[in-house]
Amino acid sequence: MTANDPTAVEQRLDALTFGPDGLLPAIVQDDASGDVLMLAWMDREAARRTLTTGRVTYWSRSRQEYWRKGDTSGHRQYVRSVAMDCDGDTLLVRAIQIGAACHTGSRTCFDGRDLGAVVGDPE
Amino acid sequence: MTANDPTAVEQRLDALTFGPDGLLPAIVQDDASGDVLMLAWMDREAARRTLTTGRVTYWSRSRQEYWRKGDTSGHRQYVRSVAMDCDGDTLLVRAIQIGAACHTGSRTCFDGRDLGAVVGDPE
Repeated sequence: MTANDPTAVEQRLDALTFGPDGLLPAIVQDDASGDVLMLAWMDREAARRTLTTGRVTYWSRSRQEYWRKGDTSGHRQYVRSVAMDCDGDTLLVRAIQIGAACHTGSRTCFDGRDLGAVVGDPE
Repeated sequence: MTANDPTAVEQRLDALTFGPDGLLPAIVQDDASGDVLMLAWMDREAARRTLTTGRVTYWSRSRQEYWRKGDTSGHRQYVRSVAMDCDGDTLLVRAIQIGAACHTGSRTCFDGRDLGAVVGDPE
């Protein structure tokens, strides 16, 4: 069985639970730095492409089309690993990020967007 | 203006975009290790409580109630920072995690759930 065996891939996809809109959230983490880069959405086909092609692919909710990260911007994401969570309704993608992950040009989509939360301290 | 100033908090909440179900995804990252621990959901009130109390609070979609992480399990999450993403529709919470983040008892919800993706390599 190879990573690309179609039956094995479909079995893995069967373990996932997509929402009412057919999508689940995918967190992307920089495999080198550990920084959380962004969150985007995948349907089954986008997850299939991400698992089998080495390039992270999303479903764009705003454009209603598949979106292989970097095809327009050059800011490609190369898959290092993909894991699902305990409920199978979230993916964690570790990736090599070329250039900026965020369309604003910042490295991550969270840079400079701190909300000033009250810090909690364990007693 | 303090972190708890009610007007400032509401202005920050106004910058967020919640989905049709009134929720947005919150990624939780271990502030010490950088590991992504889990993803859960917040409505405006859960986000308000997370920003102002020092304890991470979600909206449980399965139980349809507020869920202050650790109240039952003891596995509390203490807020270190909260950031929104460029679209304001995802939160990244950095937290001190007491015990296991996952209800299965594993440290993160993604442990041992690798999907065997094909690895991509930049040329």
